Amino acid sequence: MTAAATPSEDPARAERHRARMARKKALIDDRIAQAQGQAGVLLVTCGNGKGKSSSAFGMVARALGHGMKVGIVQFIKGAIATGEEQFFRRFPDEVQFHVMGEGYTWNTQDRARDIASAERAWDKACELLRDPAIGLVVLDELNIALKYQYLDLEKVLDDLAARPPMQHVVVTGRGAPPALIELADTATDMQLLKHAFASGIAAQPGIEW
Amino acid sequence: MTAAATPSEDPARAERHRARMARKKALIDDRIAQAQGQAGVLLVTCGNGKGKSSSAFGMVARALGHGMKVGIVQFIKGAIATGEEQFFRRFPDEVQFHVMGEGYTWNTQDRARDIASAERAWDKACELLRDPAIGLVVLDELNIALKYQYLDLEKVLDDLAARPPMQHVVVTGRGAPPALIELADTATDMQLLKHAFASGIAAQPGIEW
Repeated sequence: MTAAATPSEDPARAERHRARMARKKALIDDRIAQAQGQAGVLLVTCGNGKGKSSSAFGMVARALGHGMKVGIVQFIKGAIATGEEQFFRRFPDEVQFHVMGEGYTWNTQDRARDIASAERAWDKACELLRDPAIGLVVLDELNIALKYQYLDLEKVLDDLAARPPMQHVVVTGRGAPPALIELADTATDMQLLKHAFASGIAAQPGIEW
Repeated sequence: MTAAATPSEDPARAERHRARMARKKALIDDRIAQAQGQAGVLLVTCGNGKGKSSSAFGMVARALGHGMKVGIVQFIKGAIATGEEQFFRRFPDEVQFHVMGEGYTWNTQDRARDIASAERAWDKACELLRDPAIGLVVLDELNIALKYQYLDLEKVLDDLAARPPMQHVVVTGRGAPPALIELADTATDMQLLKHAFASGIAAQPGIEW
């Protein structure tokens, strides 16, 4: 995975980290004891290969099959409506689908606007992360916003750790910060073996979007 | 990825391989020329990390969002109905969902039965691979059947290469044979960074099934 640079440590930060990980351990121990191994998990998908966002949307389908409610925040908006958005909007009682911002300008244009956009998206994410009725939260391409430091990593980690005990979260995107991987229960590095783009094949509806 | 052993080469096999790859190249060139980069792609997901099957089901959601019809064959049947099966069976006009066999006995019990089961599943897959009305075919855990040599790899590769030009196929599972990766347009090795199972958390509905 492409990891963001680790910021230098300071004592307050180290203490927040310790507290967050202690909370994670206590919650997991408690949940396992009470519910035969059932627990809300934090999953992270990263790497340069295809499959990060699509695996999150596959878990949405699974969750819906089990009668759960799902919340999705997409941190990068594409130019066109995606297949996942068109499909999951069929189920407004079961899925909240939030496509936030207007796409990032990366480092080239207006960083202040990108930060404001990412913060609006995170506010929406926090609404979902405070709602125990939502069984699965997908934070699609959040890693990109963290990689570019559009969001405060410590706040993001605290908000994730403070979610309802049985709520699952999937975070996708290249460049997952090491501290997010550490907080995660499950993490997959999706490595590129080959991609159709290299043969001149365009992004395909149904496959890439 | 855990690769199956490469069988020793013989001239007939080498010629079939050459013909298959030539057909792939001709089809891709033709499709790109005619349709501005649009082409049916073969995707393979492999590796030990979480995300192989779920990424395929995310592509099903995307494809349905674009109005495509989808066919799914699951080569390993679990003991319980999965979330993906319960969910996608809501759309019988759009999704054919085939759960084949009774689960493999691995090497421990009845190999002949496993082979018969895999062959029935492949027959069903071939029906989908001959139908140009199906835009996306998911062959979930096919790699396992190939790894255990329950199916003839050369026949599988020939049938995949002979599918309708605009049809997409996703093949999932550990142990993808190198010749399948070679035929693929896009391949991702999903590497395990960490898994909740290691913390004592059980497989979660909505996440693993």
